[in-house]
Amino acid sequence: MLFSKETYIQRRECLRRLVGDGLILLPGNNDTPMNYPANTYKRRQDSTFLYYYGLHRDGLAAVIDCESGQETLFGDDIDIEDIVWYGSVTDMAQMAEACGVSAVRPLASLGDMLKGRKVHFLPPYRHDTQILLMDLLGLHPSQQRSAASLALIHAVVQMRSVKSEGEIAEIERACAIGYKMHTAAMMLGRQGVTDSYVSGVLDGIAASNGSITSFQNIVTMHGEILHGVPVGEPLRNGRLMLCDCGAETTEHYCSDHTRTTPVSGSFDARQADIYDIVVDCHDLALDAARPGNRWWDVHMAVCRLMTDRLKALGLMKGDTEEAVRAGAHALFMPHGLGHMMGMDVHDMEGLGQIYVGYDDETRPSSQFGTASLRMARRLEEGFVITDEPGIYFIPDLIDHWHAEGINADFLCFDEIEKYKDFGGIRIEDDVLITKDGCRFLGEELIPYKRADVERYVAEHRM
Amino acid sequence: MLFSKETYIQRRECLRRLVGDGLILLPGNNDTPMNYPANTYKRRQDSTFLYYYGLHRDGLAAVIDCESGQETLFGDDIDIEDIVWYGSVTDMAQMAEACGVSAVRPLASLGDMLKGRKVHFLPPYRHDTQILLMDLLGLHPSQQRSAASLALIHAVVQMRSVKSEGEIAEIERACAIGYKMHTAAMMLGRQGVTDSYVSGVLDGIAASNGSITSFQNIVTMHGEILHGVPVGEPLRNGRLMLCDCGAETTEHYCSDHTRTTPVSGSFDARQADIYDIVVDCHDLALDAARPGNRWWDVHMAVCRLMTDRLKALGLMKGDTEEAVRAGAHALFMPHGLGHMMGMDVHDMEGLGQIYVGYDDETRPSSQFGTASLRMARRLEEGFVITDEPGIYFIPDLIDHWHAEGINADFLCFDEIEKYKDFGGIRIEDDVLITKDGCRFLGEELIPYKRADVERYVAEHRM
Repeated sequence: MLFSKETYIQRRECLRRLVGDGLILLPGNNDTPMNYPANTYKRRQDSTFLYYYGLHRDGLAAVIDCESGQETLFGDDIDIEDIVWYGSVTDMAQMAEACGVSAVRPLASLGDMLKGRKVHFLPPYRHDTQILLMDLLGLHPSQQRSAASLALIHAVVQMRSVKSEGEIAEIERACAIGYKMHTAAMMLGRQGVTDSYVSGVLDGIAASNGSITSFQNIVTMHGEILHGVPVGEPLRNGRLMLCDCGAETTEHYCSDHTRTTPVSGSFDARQADIYDIVVDCHDLALDAARPGNRWWDVHMAVCRLMTDRLKALGLMKGDTEEAVRAGAHALFMPHGLGHMMGMDVHDMEGLGQIYVGYDDETRPSSQFGTASLRMARRLEEGFVITDEPGIYFIPDLIDHWHAEGINADFLCFDEIEKYKDFGGIRIEDDVLITKDGCRFLGEELIPYKRADVERYVAEHRM
Repeated sequence: MLFSKETYIQRRECLRRLVGDGLILLPGNNDTPMNYPANTYKRRQDSTFLYYYGLHRDGLAAVIDCESGQETLFGDDIDIEDIVWYGSVTDMAQMAEACGVSAVRPLASLGDMLKGRKVHFLPPYRHDTQILLMDLLGLHPSQQRSAASLALIHAVVQMRSVKSEGEIAEIERACAIGYKMHTAAMMLGRQGVTDSYVSGVLDGIAASNGSITSFQNIVTMHGEILHGVPVGEPLRNGRLMLCDCGAETTEHYCSDHTRTTPVSGSFDARQADIYDIVVDCHDLALDAARPGNRWWDVHMAVCRLMTDRLKALGLMKGDTEEAVRAGAHALFMPHGLGHMMGMDVHDMEGLGQIYVGYDDETRPSSQFGTASLRMARRLEEGFVITDEPGIYFIPDLIDHWHAEGINADFLCFDEIEKYKDFGGIRIEDDVLITKDGCRFLGEELIPYKRADVERYVAEHRM
């Protein structure tokens, strides 16, 4: 367990007070089948369950009675045949003791405890959990997200959003693994090596030094595909390799960085122009990230700077404020500036991005591009967010907007057409909001300024 | 796609004739959530779907009308927003054309096609597939395995059991990756390196050269835990490192090998004695593996040899035949000699091991140990099986049998007690049943004879 028993007890006590009534039901994750029941993916405990109980085993569920204060851990001990195959494991009583829960009951008795009570549950994302909730609560999986408890969602978001010192230390450990992954990609990503070879090595570094990648690696010469997975394509000089990846520690805290490196080792003039815009957008966000500022406003400031600079390159035109208000910049950056990060790489996204990144003051937009801004609300000390501007030339999107004349007042399509073979650039770092500003997470900064990237590649390329 | 359009058409035609009536429903796999809906594990298509359609995309299902011969592929094309995030993909019509299916319909219309018809389906193992089948067929997930079509199961098992030349070539490619994994483990597994570090490197080799490991790596000094996953323990001189792992190619054919290597580089006398027994059991099986022989009989011959040799070491006693009949050897080898291998590392295990490894002639045993024999029936040319004897000293099992006096007539518990710190040894290879015998799969043989292992480590240890 990452933290002391007292930490978990305090967290649950706080949760119970925030929710106030009824029962809180928190199911853990089970092993999930890959290609047959017994062949499962690597175990990944539910983040909220880990946050409140610190236990990694499968087959667990927990109930907190907000009215009586009674806490119960549900699960079954294993028998001798299981021990032969999977080894001895901590028994249920020991696990409950370790996280400070007084009562243990078999999993099959979970239904009895819920009968006739108001049950708070979070939106389930694992399909076996959906089947469990269906059996327990009589709700079809398609009805469960809307029936989830807003009181519980808000309480969990409130608690998990602000990271403790111990959590930050664990994220720093994840960033240290992320550093190894990204510098390895820079070293390996030369002409002729495939994107999937590089990506596989990164999987290995994450698994060797932590547990698993925090999401499927994006390693590609097609940076313009925002979540483009490797396809076995050999890297080619003249192109950029975009690498967006991160690690999870064994306690499942994440890192998430992006670097864009020239395969040849040097940026050409056109790449340098676009790259430097992204660097400046990235750095502008760092200057503006501090408690009290809204990430929405920082995102918009970045979009305005990007628009100004793309105007200077002859790719955009017209009034900058108007262009950004119209969403014209989203042709180039159709995503948001960043997201919360923690035990989930998009922290708590499964609870509903609207509750994590927005509030009564800051409401989401439905405009293309801005709608993908996952985090918008006012920053607080202890938030961990990503700063990840990017510029992409997406042929299908350019064709679509050009044909439909979308934002034609602000876009120089004739010039943009020339960039359809460009790809995309993104630079991403993980940032902790401090008392009066922000700081990078990770002891060593992965090189990102243009000269630093070129120097790193020149000195380390394998 | 791995094979020609004609291959897939012929396979489906054969399947349709074997099943004979009603509709065959074959759902593909979807991306499966890890810690929130959009953060998914690496995609892994269903093996049977791949076998008959060769298509890797998620969100697909297929129906074959055994009566009219009509074939339909169900799925939805993606829109511009998906293209921005995930890139352009082959559209449904192109995919259907590629595998020789004439009709394409949206996924939402799948239910209409099934209405009022007899539907053959396989036992589902993904929980989202179970929810789909529940909605389509009105069967609760807990009822689906028993409601699955025996006719379809038998037809699929019959076809997938005998591997074609193209399939064997693909398994050889998986074995080549497996060779890299196992020799890397031998090179890396020195004192002080953790089991999870070694395992992570193997993950990387599998991902860099293929797609994913064929199951979660077993890398451990506790070989006596049959499916022991790494726990971050530093390797120690004097212990053995058991490494059981395999790769999947990008087309999802598997390898599966086990090697047991001394951390120090040399076996001590006690380790050497046990190791040589396992080698001889492994080689005996190779001699006996040929068309017409039952794998059950080979398993039993191995158990008898093991018993003879353990008697010579003073660990067993009494009549060998009687000891094996009583299952006394299962204290040391509580698992079966091997299993089918192909697109699933335990090939088709999800369809029911009883249909894959047994038949009317060869029936399963419920005796501890023998009950875990996954493959028992008569061998045929083109079968791919594993040969994987092992000897383990499982402290909990020894204590249990000793206390209960289980098989006390055949076991020298006083001597066995001295081995409770030993661990376990397994040696596993993938074997193709040929016209008149068998051969190893994989161009290069991973060293397994004692002197070869020691030599390899001496020459390559990092």
